Amino acid sequence: MTALASDAHRGRNRAGDRDTAVVLGLDVGGSSVKHLLARADSSMSEPPTPLARGRNATPISAPAEALAAIAETIRGDRALARLVLSIPGIVDEENGVVIRSANIPALDGSPLGSQLETALGVPVDVINDGHAAAVAEASWGAGAGIDDVFVLALGTGIAGAHVIDGRVVTGAHGSAGELGHITIDPLGRACSCGRRGCLETIIGAPALRDAWTEVGGRGGPEALFEAFAQGDGAATAIVRRASSALAEAILTLCAVVDPGGIVIGGGLAQAPHHLVTLAERYVRERATFHRVPPIVPATLGGWAGANGTVLTALRRQRVAG
Amino acid sequence: MTALASDAHRGRNRAGDRDTAVVLGLDVGGSSVKHLLARADSSMSEPPTPLARGRNATPISAPAEALAAIAETIRGDRALARLVLSIPGIVDEENGVVIRSANIPALDGSPLGSQLETALGVPVDVINDGHAAAVAEASWGAGAGIDDVFVLALGTGIAGAHVIDGRVVTGAHGSAGELGHITIDPLGRACSCGRRGCLETIIGAPALRDAWTEVGGRGGPEALFEAFAQGDGAATAIVRRASSALAEAILTLCAVVDPGGIVIGGGLAQAPHHLVTLAERYVRERATFHRVPPIVPATLGGWAGANGTVLTALRRQRVAG
Repeated sequence: MTALASDAHRGRNRAGDRDTAVVLGLDVGGSSVKHLLARADSSMSEPPTPLARGRNATPISAPAEALAAIAETIRGDRALARLVLSIPGIVDEENGVVIRSANIPALDGSPLGSQLETALGVPVDVINDGHAAAVAEASWGAGAGIDDVFVLALGTGIAGAHVIDGRVVTGAHGSAGELGHITIDPLGRACSCGRRGCLETIIGAPALRDAWTEVGGRGGPEALFEAFAQGDGAATAIVRRASSALAEAILTLCAVVDPGGIVIGGGLAQAPHHLVTLAERYVRERATFHRVPPIVPATLGGWAGANGTVLTALRRQRVAG
Repeated sequence: MTALASDAHRGRNRAGDRDTAVVLGLDVGGSSVKHLLARADSSMSEPPTPLARGRNATPISAPAEALAAIAETIRGDRALARLVLSIPGIVDEENGVVIRSANIPALDGSPLGSQLETALGVPVDVINDGHAAAVAEASWGAGAGIDDVFVLALGTGIAGAHVIDGRVVTGAHGSAGELGHITIDPLGRACSCGRRGCLETIIGAPALRDAWTEVGGRGGPEALFEAFAQGDGAATAIVRRASSALAEAILTLCAVVDPGGIVIGGGLAQAPHHLVTLAERYVRERATFHRVPPIVPATLGGWAGANGTVLTALRRQRVAG
């Protein structure tokens, strides 16, 4: 938070009605910006009842100005205490700078935090979208009640975040949690990371799609899971191989990190949770010295990220006093 | 610390001379008990100059009584502020109980901490020997100056401990850091853990000895390293394979944990550090997205554990005020 924004924020709060102060979370995705508005004095022990909830199209040009306009519209005449945005990509969370955005090239390198602080006159934090979803799942979703949770998101890539006491363990260089790049098959396929046989080359959505197409299947992972559920032999082999690879990565995770719970979400982990169920079975069958914690599907779905921005806003609001 | 011991401790300190109060560290190994005695007001920023340093034979029977006698002899007439012991095996550090000791069966299940508190009248902590060595290497050894260090010990087994701000990250069930049981070769040899192809099956001392014997080599790992240094082809193949396996485990560690430094010690990592040097080269050659931190040999050698007991005693003494 810049000194300027902090002063403006305090000035606004003195003038405004503290009882109605709100925090706003914006989950900026590739196609839409989801928003959740909550009272700034909401309890952090469960998801607050939103004062507003919805989505807008993701701005392509002049994103800082467009996001400020979205925030202004949502806040209306309420006293805004803090805004938190989650962005897909690499974020310098300390300084509110988007280093590289996965889907919104116009954001690359932009000091989005300070731009929005200047525009809105309130403290603004910018966080990684995977981290946002992870803290929400850990605190308000499937990991609620466990202090030490590793959250996995299975999609095009595999994202991971270790959440202890509600905070992501980022590692010394901010790049911990890359479970998708554990080597599963040293002789396997080339991975986008430049190595070979990573978990992502077996269980990522493109890998599942390719494997399904190669055996003559039509459609993407959803069709594959449907065929698996109906007992199709080729689909069964693919889903088993993917679940087995995930199980191996989880066993490595248990050996090295020893989390108190594992929550698995993302597009590939939705109900009826075939990959999660099968991977959990393999983990329990193969574990020896490992302390295998509960392995459960995520529960917040596509709103995990937005919940994480609100949770982060509430936490930082408390710390800022 | 029990209430009784705490009272006894305070009473002794009131009566004694605070300026000469000391802390004692005992590193209880399979054959000897190393001791280091230091002033209780020693700086924690570097290893203190020991007031006494030496070793006694490890007691086989009645170990609690024998260890108390050793401590009494070393303290002499000095005011002892705290004793910390490190034990090879599984330790309930919170309660000072030895769950299972690797080399001293008589200690299995014993409430060693409270036994020694009663005998000596001072607070006593019992910690795992690998944790003791790791905090010492991280704070006073090769990791000094780095906040976030993963310490590996290469010996019969492979022990690992992630040390952040001088404290071991133990995991939710106290079993984090088992880098020796990352699967390197899914089709590899059976491991003592019950799985197959773990790092330990390729780089543990017995694995190196077996591989060297199979190609007609004589002697253990030391002879293997000597033959490697002289350019022996078979030795080179074995050392390269072991270093390559270690490099793969380190790449997984960087992807999942992202430490700020990696310190490698233990019997197999002593000067001239062939395994460490080669593994570091492989890691840098193979890294893609990974943030590879400094990878350096340990510097405290066989006294790392004893230093870790003193460091732990000084830290807990500070916390206890």
